[in-house]
Amino acid sequence: MKFKQIKNKYFLRLMKGEKIIETLLKFLKEQNIKAGFFNGLGAISHVILANYNLETKEYIEKEFEGQREIVSFHGNLSMMDNEPYVHAHMAVGDDDMNMKGGHCKEAIVAATCEIVLIDLDIDISRYKDEEIGLNLFNF
Amino acid sequence: MKFKQIKNKYFLRLMKGEKIIETLLKFLKEQNIKAGFFNGLGAISHVILANYNLETKEYIEKEFEGQREIVSFHGNLSMMDNEPYVHAHMAVGDDDMNMKGGHCKEAIVAATCEIVLIDLDIDISRYKDEEIGLNLFNF
Amino acid sequence: MKFKQIKNKYFLRLMKGEKIIETLLKFLKEQNIKAGFFNGLGAISHVILANYNLETKEYIEKEFEGQREIVSFHGNLSMMDNEPYVHAHMAVGDDDMNMKGGHCKEAIVAATCEIVLIDLDIDISRYKDEEIGLNLFNF
Repeated sequence: MKFKQIKNKYFLRLMKGEKIIETLLKFLKEQNIKAGFFNGLGAISHVILANYNLETKEYIEKEFEGQREIVSFHGNLSMMDNEPYVHAHMAVGDDDMNMKGGHCKEAIVAATCEIVLIDLDIDISRYKDEEIGLNLFNF
Repeated sequence: MKFKQIKNKYFLRLMKGEKIIETLLKFLKEQNIKAGFFNGLGAISHVILANYNLETKEYIEKEFEGQREIVSFHGNLSMMDNEPYVHAHMAVGDDDMNMKGGHCKEAIVAATCEIVLIDLDIDISRYKDEEIGLNLFNF
Repeated sequence: MKFKQIKNKYFLRLMKGEKIIETLLKFLKEQNIKAGFFNGLGAISHVILANYNLETKEYIEKEFEGQREIVSFHGNLSMMDNEPYVHAHMAVGDDDMNMKGGHCKEAIVAATCEIVLIDLDIDISRYKDEEIGLNLFNF
């Protein structure tokens, strides 16, 4: 991954084969970014998408193999237990432009992935909400 | 709904059962926000999506029940007749990660809904365009 | 196309019949915008979407006729060979709220298209990467 910084904004360029969420988390830690948001596009060769089930308090996951465009990819950045936290959703499209989308657990870059990320330079943290079963904003 | 403000930016956290568009409009009025943009993610239990028909000048609406991820949700903020105006589109995904999307009339939060909103601190207003049949930017 | 500028941010309003990518490129050139990002919504009457094939190094394109909502439309702005460069992906939805999405080659406005665009006031350029076959960020 390479990036270019413009004050509190970053252009990120992820390389073929890189894991997007893992790479984002590493970047946030290195840059000490504690809150913000981003969006991105590009193409992926593999993605794990999920839909949360409030009754079982578990994510239903589906994996998709094969090259697809990242039609939309956006999310927010915060902290949990003193570690960076990425909450991101992604939609992908295939050769017929048919789409799949959900909570993005992880995705692997196919050709490139270009992300614009804004650092808000404050602390936004999360806590585990027992009723909902998710890590929610702590405010 | 709870929120955290960082200068002209806001993190919003909507609660289970809240109506997203209604809650946004109330928030804009209380904060006196007259122009801006936002994006969000989370999960909904109910959504009314629509596709505009330019010939009949009416929206074709579909309602979807059941828990779905908000795969993408973004829009702009302006004023019309001295009231806040939210123009938002939403895409949602189900357990098979199949998606539905369109103009978002209203949606009800399932687990959580997290919105990043930027206040641009100017006036952007809308007028009813008779030829198009929609409320368009007044510039 | 009409627009309203707020410091480094722009609200754009594209008119029925205008080509979105072509109009964006003309606007960037006139305003001398060399890097940034945007998102938009509205409705289109025609769109060319594409999925990149890394093996053939060619885009697979599909054209869709008929009025659809722009469910999501976002991308980044940079320069290549001293000309503005728009990298944008789009998802559209029909009367059943079924979606198609991919790399956006071009799209024609149906009712309106509203874009929020942020000028980052720096240089971000692209080069043709021979291995990937795409125009990638030059950093």
